[in-house]
Amino acid sequence: MTNPSLLILPGDGIGPEVMAEVRKIIDWIGDKRGVTFDVSEDLVGGAAYDKHGVPLADETMAKAQEVDAVLLGAVGGPKYDDLDFSVKPERGLLRLRKEMDLYSNLRPAQCFDALADFSSLKRDIVSGLDIMIVRELTSGVYFGEPRGIFEENGERVGINTQRYTETEIERGARSAFELAMKRNKRLCSMEKANVMESGILWREVVTRVGKDYPEVELSHMYADNGAMQLVRAPKQFDVIYTDNLFGDILSDCAAMLTGSLGMLPSASLGAPMANGRPKALYEPVHGSAPDIAGEGKANPCACILSFAMALRYSFDMGDEADRLEAAVEKVLADGVRTGDLSNEEGVKPVSTSDMGDAVIAAL
Amino acid sequence: MTNPSLLILPGDGIGPEVMAEVRKIIDWIGDKRGVTFDVSEDLVGGAAYDKHGVPLADETMAKAQEVDAVLLGAVGGPKYDDLDFSVKPERGLLRLRKEMDLYSNLRPAQCFDALADFSSLKRDIVSGLDIMIVRELTSGVYFGEPRGIFEENGERVGINTQRYTETEIERGARSAFELAMKRNKRLCSMEKANVMESGILWREVVTRVGKDYPEVELSHMYADNGAMQLVRAPKQFDVIYTDNLFGDILSDCAAMLTGSLGMLPSASLGAPMANGRPKALYEPVHGSAPDIAGEGKANPCACILSFAMALRYSFDMGDEADRLEAAVEKVLADGVRTGDLSNEEGVKPVSTSDMGDAVIAAL
Ligand SMILES: CC(C)[C@H](C(=O)O)[C@@H](O)C(=O)O
Ligand SMILES: CC(C)[C@H](C(=O)O)[C@@H](O)C(=O)O
Repeated sequence: MTNPSLLILPGDGIGPEVMAEVRKIIDWIGDKRGVTFDVSEDLVGGAAYDKHGVPLADETMAKAQEVDAVLLGAVGGPKYDDLDFSVKPERGLLRLRKEMDLYSNLRPAQCFDALADFSSLKRDIVSGLDIMIVRELTSGVYFGEPRGIFEENGERVGINTQRYTETEIERGARSAFELAMKRNKRLCSMEKANVMESGILWREVVTRVGKDYPEVELSHMYADNGAMQLVRAPKQFDVIYTDNLFGDILSDCAAMLTGSLGMLPSASLGAPMANGRPKALYEPVHGSAPDIAGEGKANPCACILSFAMALRYSFDMGDEADRLEAAVEKVLADGVRTGDLSNEEGVKPVSTSDMGDAVIAAL
Repeated sequence: MTNPSLLILPGDGIGPEVMAEVRKIIDWIGDKRGVTFDVSEDLVGGAAYDKHGVPLADETMAKAQEVDAVLLGAVGGPKYDDLDFSVKPERGLLRLRKEMDLYSNLRPAQCFDALADFSSLKRDIVSGLDIMIVRELTSGVYFGEPRGIFEENGERVGINTQRYTETEIERGARSAFELAMKRNKRLCSMEKANVMESGILWREVVTRVGKDYPEVELSHMYADNGAMQLVRAPKQFDVIYTDNLFGDILSDCAAMLTGSLGMLPSASLGAPMANGRPKALYEPVHGSAPDIAGEGKANPCACILSFAMALRYSFDMGDEADRLEAAVEKVLADGVRTGDLSNEEGVKPVSTSDMGDAVIAAL
């Protein structure tokens, strides 16, 4: 049997620092659990642009297609703000999503009990919050053609196209229903079927797929109302299924409800490969945080928890994932805090590396 | 001199009830201030569909084009859920917006001090909140062509088109900058320029228009981050300018921060007419609330405050608008509450009509 393989793309900003902590955990699992990962590392985003003039080299793309899972840190930074659209750091990430065909983006919005007071929302509104947002990730207005800036009647016009085929809506919906089956069996689908025909088709296809999951209670909500309801009473939701653009906004809104962005992981999954594992990329929800990069202040938990998702969804190591998540929760309960989570009086923030060590100690 | 003219479209659900309170105030202004409005009334939404088979009759559309301002209650209801897309109640509203060319939608998100505890957010995060969202209302993915559900490679595909010309972006931007000049001189423009070419053009045009307003501090934010920042620290914003679809979602998110949707008005403004007044439609942000329609429980304040916006933006009666707004605030401070705002112990909710009377008494 070959070892499970992992491509690590630390990327920009705090990406490398938080990823260093994940590598400690990978090593720990090799030592203590006897599961050795074949780890390779490469560049993405601004780091790749600096070396190759593109935010993702073809060789890196090819590697990503071959490994069992990709783990990404973060991309972007002010240094790259003036680059042309086609070579911006984000394009590296978007290329990975598209070419690996990672259509199902899982974004848990979970409020850790020890951190509920960091939320801008009242404690009782968010404590115990545990939503899973499934965002369609390879289609919609992110990739639809025609797109671009064109000349028309003597002025320019910016065009993007929202496009969803039945197949695209359906495969994402199936992954959302499957998740709902393992959770509280409630799925809310969000679109703007009152305004957009693509939303009408979305609602129709999700309803049809729902017939295969009679145990799941399916509801539909307009995306604007969805944003309201997330703010008003987020605990009403279990799984939310929505498109690429709505998912971008609604999942960020949901993430911020928890008040601790530095804690939130994500998984982007595609179709099963020959070995039965889904194509997969894991990344923290937070960005590259250039303002604190290199200072050892970043919170590595989101990246560590992204690796926990990899253990669960790519490597059939659900128990190990549970243990890793429990270790993170224990560390928080013990009051260990990186700078992003230590505005309480008298709590001294620990460094990125101390946080990683604390998680390992808790394991 | 002719009287100022007003077309009232109560619409569906609680629309007629809340509008009845506005009519009391219009009468009061006629009596006490000697300003008589020529008021006509007509149907929109489901109510128009029931009578004419369309959610807005051509004659009503023609009337709307002629009056100084339109005041709309709300449209929609479960009775109309299964209607064809083309005759749904919402289409009546969208037709008004499009044919009157109401490109600038002003949505204040204001937190009334007496109501700050209704917010799901902590008091200190929202008390004193006063944001103005300017949403482009006549273009973007709401109206772009091609649109529809098409057959392609043996399956259906739902298509909508995001389309913005420089002219469209610019005229909305000017109205946003003008508002910022009258407020705290800060404008944040939101798009997804990292993903969408239409967002790139948006950012470029807004930046260019900003050169004409050197006193206004202009910033740009990706819309997903915008959603996060609205939840995290909404008071950082003064005026926000964004497109039709982002505006739909972000303004609803912002509205819900205040916790009292029943209080929020909106204005949709177009180009100046021959008499110098802008084409204008005013409507509450809340919907038709079919669950409580006809029971006298609805909060008329959002509709009353929409009329206050009409006084300010259509009729040059800013002082009268200030007085009306102050009257509403006084009534709230006195503890008068409709059902939506009375979950406090010992507070007995008043009826829609009592609330209207209380506002008049405070005037
Ligand atoms: C970085 C950016 C391209 C990306 C997106 O818009 O999808 C990010 O916001 C995300 O949600 O992962
Ligand atoms: C009713 C609907 C068509 C409308 C919109 O999407 O614009 C509403 O949500 C709004 O924001 O005014």
